Amino acid sequence: MIGGSLAMALRKAGYVKKVVGCSRSEEHLQRAVDLGVIDSFTLDPIEAVKGADMIILAVPMRVIKPMLKSIADHIEPNAIITDAGSAKGSVIAAATAAFGGVVPPNFVAGHPIAGREKSSVEAAIDDLYIDHKVVLTPSSETSSEAVIRVKDMWQTAGAIVETLDAKHHDDVLAATSHLPHILAYSLVNTLSKSEYGDAVFDYAAGGFKSFSRIASSDPVMWRDICLENKEAILSALNDFQQDLTDLSASIEDKNSEELMQIFANAKETRDRNI
Amino acid sequence: MIGGSLAMALRKAGYVKKVVGCSRSEEHLQRAVDLGVIDSFTLDPIEAVKGADMIILAVPMRVIKPMLKSIADHIEPNAIITDAGSAKGSVIAAATAAFGGVVPPNFVAGHPIAGREKSSVEAAIDDLYIDHKVVLTPSSETSSEAVIRVKDMWQTAGAIVETLDAKHHDDVLAATSHLPHILAYSLVNTLSKSEYGDAVFDYAAGGFKSFSRIASSDPVMWRDICLENKEAILSALNDFQQDLTDLSASIEDKNSEELMQIFANAKETRDRNI
Repeated sequence: MIGGSLAMALRKAGYVKKVVGCSRSEEHLQRAVDLGVIDSFTLDPIEAVKGADMIILAVPMRVIKPMLKSIADHIEPNAIITDAGSAKGSVIAAATAAFGGVVPPNFVAGHPIAGREKSSVEAAIDDLYIDHKVVLTPSSETSSEAVIRVKDMWQTAGAIVETLDAKHHDDVLAATSHLPHILAYSLVNTLSKSEYGDAVFDYAAGGFKSFSRIASSDPVMWRDICLENKEAILSALNDFQQDLTDLSASIEDKNSEELMQIFANAKETRDRNI
Repeated sequence: MIGGSLAMALRKAGYVKKVVGCSRSEEHLQRAVDLGVIDSFTLDPIEAVKGADMIILAVPMRVIKPMLKSIADHIEPNAIITDAGSAKGSVIAAATAAFGGVVPPNFVAGHPIAGREKSSVEAAIDDLYIDHKVVLTPSSETSSEAVIRVKDMWQTAGAIVETLDAKHHDDVLAATSHLPHILAYSLVNTLSKSEYGDAVFDYAAGGFKSFSRIASSDPVMWRDICLENKEAILSALNDFQQDLTDLSASIEDKNSEELMQIFANAKETRDRNI
């Protein structure tokens, strides 16, 4: 979905000569060809990067390191490598390990802040990135030419490209993206154990539907994000649990004033920023 | 918004002769007249119920008890009283207290499971209740004629009317509505204290937007719900916090299998039920 949407946007813009897809599933890749998302495919990553001037790793985060290791010695001299992972510290660490202890200058860690609950190539759309942010987190070793080329590619797909320090990115995304996903998944699980069974969902209104929408996201992707952005997520989770415990105490104490303050502050913050 | 939307739907259906509005604000009531939502208004609840055959209390929950007390001795013999509060046990207790120790047979506790983040009469729309559930929680003292009349009114507004035991209603709504609202409010508050300031929201994507939408709801309404459905909410909150602590431990332990199971189960449950 992420890689396919980028390929569709770039092909639509006439930005690419040839898009070669690579994944574990020949069936998925054949569908991508049939849908006009890619030109050709291979199951072999080494084969895929032959002759490529731009390599995009749009895979679950835990696959990034082994993937980089397998292609490291087969990349063309002028090729740029980038990724679409939701956490950047661990990707930079993976690249460092895969390339023998230093991040190669042609590696640009990146994160398109866009997505859908659906995954796989059928969910790819050519306008996914329009007006969405893409954050690049180059390190001091990254060449500025590589950053410019990756930026140009995402801008061609319609995105607004920004550059952030990797830790800054990971902290912020842990709070605004990873934590809400974890809460949505966890809430649905709590409800699934209700004494009223699935009937509990019969009385779910629009609020619950929009709140829990992100619990339909790909479990593999979110498992990997939890493992790859562990420290930032645990820190955000800990802050959240403390605030929730305070709120719980305000309810327990029937502290009308505190509850009013908590809800009014949240509404004001949300209305101001979103 | 809740009362106004009902008035608009009933007027559109030609179901009502005259709708009299009552609130604390003459300005709001005048706007309701100007917008064609109500026919006339009064600031005096006793005046408002004179000649009324259907009395609907669409007010913050903590106002229900004093409101019922003030009108108790002034209700016409054939009038029906109902409410739109999000918790029903406390409303039945309020009615019991207001009417001298017994729920009057003409009182039907009700809850339309529909809403918008916006409040006040400008947010009222005539199709708010179409295909939405309205739960009535009559007690053994409630007359079946009163239930039929309230049911008929909500059905005229397009709603699907169901009857539940009050405790069942309060438990289920605590889980599917009150808990998600509390989590959304609490998350926005946690984020508002971020070391990155409001800039943290610059990287909020669609997931956060839909997750936190309900944190724009009316703080007074949600303060009251927390106070009026305290026990059921605390119980749901406690279940949630235990599950979240378990999930947090799975991240801490990098327990890939457990994380996968939690996320996959939640996705499967959500996709099956919503």
